[in-house]
Amino acid sequence: MTTQIGMLLFPDLTQLDLTGPFELFCELPDSKVHLLWKDTKPVYADSGLGLLPTTALGDAPQLDLLFIPGGWGQMRLMRDEEILGFLRRHGEKARYVTSVCTGALLLGAAGLLRGYRAATHWAFMELLPLVGATPVDERIVVDRNRITAGGVTAGIDFGLHILAELAGADFAQRAQLQLEYDPAPPFRSGHPRVADPALVAAARRDLADTVEKRRASLPKIMASGHT
Amino acid sequence: MTTQIGMLLFPDLTQLDLTGPFELFCELPDSKVHLLWKDTKPVYADSGLGLLPTTALGDAPQLDLLFIPGGWGQMRLMRDEEILGFLRRHGEKARYVTSVCTGALLLGAAGLLRGYRAATHWAFMELLPLVGATPVDERIVVDRNRITAGGVTAGIDFGLHILAELAGADFAQRAQLQLEYDPAPPFRSGHPRVADPALVAAARRDLADTVEKRRASLPKIMASGHT
Repeated sequence: MTTQIGMLLFPDLTQLDLTGPFELFCELPDSKVHLLWKDTKPVYADSGLGLLPTTALGDAPQLDLLFIPGGWGQMRLMRDEEILGFLRRHGEKARYVTSVCTGALLLGAAGLLRGYRAATHWAFMELLPLVGATPVDERIVVDRNRITAGGVTAGIDFGLHILAELAGADFAQRAQLQLEYDPAPPFRSGHPRVADPALVAAARRDLADTVEKRRASLPKIMASGHT
Repeated sequence: MTTQIGMLLFPDLTQLDLTGPFELFCELPDSKVHLLWKDTKPVYADSGLGLLPTTALGDAPQLDLLFIPGGWGQMRLMRDEEILGFLRRHGEKARYVTSVCTGALLLGAAGLLRGYRAATHWAFMELLPLVGATPVDERIVVDRNRITAGGVTAGIDFGLHILAELAGADFAQRAQLQLEYDPAPPFRSGHPRVADPALVAAARRDLADTVEKRRASLPKIMASGHT
């Protein structure tokens, strides 16, 4: 049986949320990775990178693993019944329902994190309760079949976790060696708990508008009855 | 003055070699990132990901930073005069000449690493002398204006290094925080120096054919007079 993996693309996604785990998922034996969007025309990331979907939503097989990346563009999808319906339909039956970064908020808007512990990008953690999830300040959070990861580069750790889950620890370690994932960040600034507080304050100010817009709209989305 | 950054795409590249640093380069102020190929039709990575070039080689401005990712497909480019000529032309004038993973071998085939210390994917380090470079077993190697990085995920550390170089350490630290790059690999297996020796031996066996083919062809390419 082929493991069907579906990764949602959308305009203004953060491409590294997706391309990190994608590189790892593609290593899995007996599996097929679908890059999903409404059609198969190019989708442009928030950074301008043009990516080609492989599979239109309507052509997707029942997914064993559903994956949602983050990015500014997801706010538009939270009122899009085609997308929410797709996520709910596959999310209810999938063996794993997963996200990286703010992808968790879209999963939540589809009702798929209600009553679950979850992670998201550090700057958006406080919004998780608005979709019924309990924020957990960890890089990867596993609650039953929901596996959610922190911001952007957490997707690589997440991808290795999924490989270990689906193909075993030896397989995941081999993939880690192939990708030379022996990280050596030049700074210790990758999370508020280790970064300079002044830097964190400045980054929070940069993101404040985005966070506030979501804080205002998420309760309306959740109350709209769609979920 | 806009900093012109050129990242080479090619069929069967390893997309994460490129998409990691791309996410970071796009943060740079006063800069433009070009995804370069012979034309602007989709280019498919070794994993099947379809990426859209932004700029045909002939339309590229003089580049300030030239970047080459790795991937199986680069062997074909080593005998491609259009590509080698492009790399030489821009490499001679660029402020920075850079690569991630086996991209160093293509830089080398264009004659751009002769007499330089360099890094590449751990499994291909022993081939660097064939292009006139001195292998250095470090994740990022800086020798004058050549900046070369190790395999695949080294591109993220490399990207942060470039951000610090071009926009300052504070800027790079902020980007690291935004991308939540506080890595927590689930295993210690990302480099032969830390991985289980049996795992390393198995990975070397997997790659032996590829390494040997390159070992056989690189001297011919270098002797062909193109470089």
